[in-house]
Amino acid sequence: MAMMDVNNMIDIIDAIGVFAFAISGIRMAANKGFDLFGAFVVGFATAIGGGTIRDLLLGVTPVWMTNSLYVTMTIMALLFVVVFRKRLIHMNVTLFIFDTFGLALYTVVGIEKTLAMDYVYPWWVPITMGTLGGAAGGIIRDVLLAEIPLIFKKEIYATACIFGGVIFFICDALGANHLVSDFVCAGVVVAARILAVRYGISIPKIKKEE
Amino acid sequence: MAMMDVNNMIDIIDAIGVFAFAISGIRMAANKGFDLFGAFVVGFATAIGGGTIRDLLLGVTPVWMTNSLYVTMTIMALLFVVVFRKRLIHMNVTLFIFDTFGLALYTVVGIEKTLAMDYVYPWWVPITMGTLGGAAGGIIRDVLLAEIPLIFKKEIYATACIFGGVIFFICDALGANHLVSDFVCAGVVVAARILAVRYGISIPKIKKEE
Amino acid sequence: MAMMDVNNMIDIIDAIGVFAFAISGIRMAANKGFDLFGAFVVGFATAIGGGTIRDLLLGVTPVWMTNSLYVTMTIMALLFVVVFRKRLIHMNVTLFIFDTFGLALYTVVGIEKTLAMDYVYPWWVPITMGTLGGAAGGIIRDVLLAEIPLIFKKEIYATACIFGGVIFFICDALGANHLVSDFVCAGVVVAARILAVRYGISIPKIKKEE
Repeated sequence: MAMMDVNNMIDIIDAIGVFAFAISGIRMAANKGFDLFGAFVVGFATAIGGGTIRDLLLGVTPVWMTNSLYVTMTIMALLFVVVFRKRLIHMNVTLFIFDTFGLALYTVVGIEKTLAMDYVYPWWVPITMGTLGGAAGGIIRDVLLAEIPLIFKKEIYATACIFGGVIFFICDALGANHLVSDFVCAGVVVAARILAVRYGISIPKIKKEE
Repeated sequence: MAMMDVNNMIDIIDAIGVFAFAISGIRMAANKGFDLFGAFVVGFATAIGGGTIRDLLLGVTPVWMTNSLYVTMTIMALLFVVVFRKRLIHMNVTLFIFDTFGLALYTVVGIEKTLAMDYVYPWWVPITMGTLGGAAGGIIRDVLLAEIPLIFKKEIYATACIFGGVIFFICDALGANHLVSDFVCAGVVVAARILAVRYGISIPKIKKEE
Repeated sequence: MAMMDVNNMIDIIDAIGVFAFAISGIRMAANKGFDLFGAFVVGFATAIGGGTIRDLLLGVTPVWMTNSLYVTMTIMALLFVVVFRKRLIHMNVTLFIFDTFGLALYTVVGIEKTLAMDYVYPWWVPITMGTLGGAAGGIIRDVLLAEIPLIFKKEIYATACIFGGVIFFICDALGANHLVSDFVCAGVVVAARILAVRYGISIPKIKKEE
């Protein structure tokens, strides 16, 4: 595959990832009685919140401030939810796939962005940045809704990013080039997420003290 | 008007804006049973939270760390609430005016601060920074109170900043100098906010999926 | 005491401080039905959240990104809570002491780190950074649990940091060298915290408006 095609593919996945992330925020905002502005903010924060935390920690300008894709796709997500409100429930599988592709992409982007910095961090920092980029937007969404973050209680979500990140560094240690490691990492995130939802796999709860 | 007078006026509006923002946080903290320290923190976070997020995103030192005005005015707001507790309800109109002047000032400050950066952002970034500076402190206040942010459900508040910001760039495109654009922007924010409250105008809710 | 010993002592206090902070987050997460991943995140955020906010405000790389101590101690804290779940309640005094030592250390670290920056901030900024480093992790923990932050309603906690910070600058003004000021500051934080809990001293509530 030529590099041109890879870049095009990344842009497309980025756009549908933002779209899916924003929709998840906007739908929850709608169910809590938010106005259109509030729904937009929650959608945007869901879409860009994880990447923003990642970029602030890395000391670089947050990606949405230099690329209009994110604000544009959030506006489109808002229009989409308003127009297709009653049909959204029939699109859950499609939105799940979009969300999963976004999750995989942001994991890889977070890892590569951290590795590209001058400073050499310990190996678990790129994985953490990948996981933040993929999953922290959902935490911010739930904080804005005054609810306990979903990803702390349900399903494999952020842990799929961690799993993919570990595989990335295993590939790397085995001598794979970055593009190969990227694809394997993304594939593992997608597979882990789909298998977890398909077979109802989740992380065990931590037991109460009684 | 001489530049000296404009600067003096800005300092005065800044002080009363911080005062009003801090009071809104302190009053809510009082109604939730916070102690004096907690009330101070919520007041301070309401006053400086929006500007802090703006400044972190822009990569500059948050303004309250280099100017004692903000912490001083928050302490004065705390004393004010403690002393005039029973009379506060009769000052709601005055506090609303103070709050609105602060909102307008922080909108303009956020826009100008972003435009003054070396990096040239897309036009909607300065507007976003103006809106964050004006309205994000209230979001942080509500998160600290474990409540859904008021501005997502009620009234024209952050949207007044956005409206003012758009007008700023229209003035700019029409060839107005920055000082004129600043004043028009601030005037629009104040007018939008007052008219919205006076006539009960609000943003439509986004409909639930059912 | 040789400098070597002081550095060793700081590393040990840092480790037990992180351990105690992480355990406080993990225990609360367990009581809210979080899974192991969620408990880890809340524990880690409690341990490193305050220092992260401090470092972002100061414009430096957050300390946990360059030192594996924090993630390692959080993993150990998670294992500890899982293994000793039923005996934790009998360790409350020990964990309280650990937590208090951590609080004192992070207060001093925040002050010294701010003073070491090129930029000279007003005197209350280092105190604020010390207080954030010590106490803001607990605020983030409670926000992630969708609860009102404990430290806004109960006991002397963050105020012990402020008190220690003021004493630091009094020592400094009296001509003490930094190491002496550090120890006096830490001692005051520990003493204030222990006396407050022992004698049930707390900050007065701010009265409601009725």
